[in-house]
Amino acid sequence: MEKKRILSGMRPTGRLHMGNLHGALLNWVKLQDEYQCFYFVADWHALTTDYEQTEGIRENIWFMFIDWLSVGLDPQKSTLFVQSALPEHAELFLLFSMITPITWLERNPTYKEQLQELSHKDLRTFGFLGYPVLQAADILMYKANGVPVGVDQLPHVELTREIARRCNFLYGKIFPEPEALLTEIPKLCGTDGRKMSKSYQNCIYLSDTPEAIRKQVSGMITDTQRPRRKDPGDPDRCLAFPYHKLYLSTDILAQIVVDCRAARLGCVECKKMLADALVQALEPIQARQHYYLDHPEEVRAIIADGNERARTVARATMAEVREAIKI
Amino acid sequence: MEKKRILSGMRPTGRLHMGNLHGALLNWVKLQDEYQCFYFVADWHALTTDYEQTEGIRENIWFMFIDWLSVGLDPQKSTLFVQSALPEHAELFLLFSMITPITWLERNPTYKEQLQELSHKDLRTFGFLGYPVLQAADILMYKANGVPVGVDQLPHVELTREIARRCNFLYGKIFPEPEALLTEIPKLCGTDGRKMSKSYQNCIYLSDTPEAIRKQVSGMITDTQRPRRKDPGDPDRCLAFPYHKLYLSTDILAQIVVDCRAARLGCVECKKMLADALVQALEPIQARQHYYLDHPEEVRAIIADGNERARTVARATMAEVREAIKI
Repeated sequence: MEKKRILSGMRPTGRLHMGNLHGALLNWVKLQDEYQCFYFVADWHALTTDYEQTEGIRENIWFMFIDWLSVGLDPQKSTLFVQSALPEHAELFLLFSMITPITWLERNPTYKEQLQELSHKDLRTFGFLGYPVLQAADILMYKANGVPVGVDQLPHVELTREIARRCNFLYGKIFPEPEALLTEIPKLCGTDGRKMSKSYQNCIYLSDTPEAIRKQVSGMITDTQRPRRKDPGDPDRCLAFPYHKLYLSTDILAQIVVDCRAARLGCVECKKMLADALVQALEPIQARQHYYLDHPEEVRAIIADGNERARTVARATMAEVREAIKI
Repeated sequence: MEKKRILSGMRPTGRLHMGNLHGALLNWVKLQDEYQCFYFVADWHALTTDYEQTEGIRENIWFMFIDWLSVGLDPQKSTLFVQSALPEHAELFLLFSMITPITWLERNPTYKEQLQELSHKDLRTFGFLGYPVLQAADILMYKANGVPVGVDQLPHVELTREIARRCNFLYGKIFPEPEALLTEIPKLCGTDGRKMSKSYQNCIYLSDTPEAIRKQVSGMITDTQRPRRKDPGDPDRCLAFPYHKLYLSTDILAQIVVDCRAARLGCVECKKMLADALVQALEPIQARQHYYLDHPEEVRAIIADGNERARTVARATMAEVREAIKI
């Protein structure tokens, strides 16, 4: 039996960080063996919020691809592509827009939330209201059975399912209804305790130098209720500890927990251990980053090949859709 | 100096009638010498209101093309094409949607008007709200300087100008601001006095047989204040008279006016003169219709060639747009 298909995308934010790695990429890498994976750079989606500031999108796509490849996304196993290279996505967006009631979009909980959150931008545009329609086109184009997402994205997957149902109802069965693949994601904060995000400057990037990593880790908020070195600490309150759990061996972890609680281990020293582990863990990723930076023609070929493979599927879907709509 | 460009489109309603001929087509034919003309079948626009009923769109495109050619649209002079053959229109629609405030669309006077008028259809869709954005993409794709429209379309041309300005402001000067080309259109009604429209079954089609034309003309409402043959009539109140003015010679017209007012000429006889004139006037058009119906391969080649010529322009525009947006 053919493997099931999944699709996921990421906006081109540039170099990737630990939040991206543990929030999505490692999961994407894992899924490659079980599924036929389509992963894409959602550059048109970047325009929904950043149409006034498009400078740098192309460079961001480039570095994102390099980081994808470096963490283990395998162009032999997965189809890696760039959304804007496939006008088919825009055509399917247009066709879906005809059958999508405005109320479905207005009731989208993340819509009003984002309007408020990003109130410094003018987002009362037609395209921002319609970005879930574009997402539906992205997903259904590849007849994905599953979409790996976080809980905040659940309403979008539900909307995609609704659009698939409505399209199937009006024009005949074309699309499967994709399932959300929820995955356990470790709760990792940025160095300041907020969500790790480029705009907060609280990131540890996969491409950071050992010095930069050490500096960022040393600034991480730990247990705020342990003001002095001689006070006992609590790893469960420590914002750095989730990283320890991921990057230190269980033996060392157990020792750290005991020593922290007994005030035998200070945060400075403890974070130094983490920084060492992180530097070491990122070494093979960074070696691959350097390889791809040194071989741009290889990256270009991988992107072109991924776009071409995506196009083959997209063309077949669009032929089927046009035939069904009789247009 | 290069000729200025104009663009206009028509939804694929099938065989065309006298309303289409005098409302748009004769004007389009005339404009061919003065301008570089792009005329297209707006099949995606048909979906904005008829997404639930797409049966017949392809056939309608076919007959519309045959009627276009038969009334004198010349594929040597003008670029005649089908919207859905050019995914570039969908891509530009998507990009424009990112920069178009929802309020511009909601305040579109024809939007709420049509929601009411077509209240038997469910038009509260995202695509119906956005059809002026698609129109802007259609027009600006060819950098049209002018758009031949009726007064009811003026708000759409204004919206296109606003989108052009906003795009030029954000990404640099790409698009001219097209002007509306308002043309004097003779006030022709359908046989029942309402606007001539397929859905009212009050049309005289360019492809009607002499018998059908005679039957339709004989049923036309004339002067409703002339109940009896022996009452004097008033051509200015007669709903058929605008047709007389277009299809009978000035000599005969003058005689008709005198005889009608003097009750010397009855409506039955008067409409028979009109029917004869119409049958004769449509003869050469119908000869060409038959020619194209007998030579479908020629029509197919004309459509393919028009699409290809449109594509050359559309690709150049999209390359420029992508470069400007830096995507």
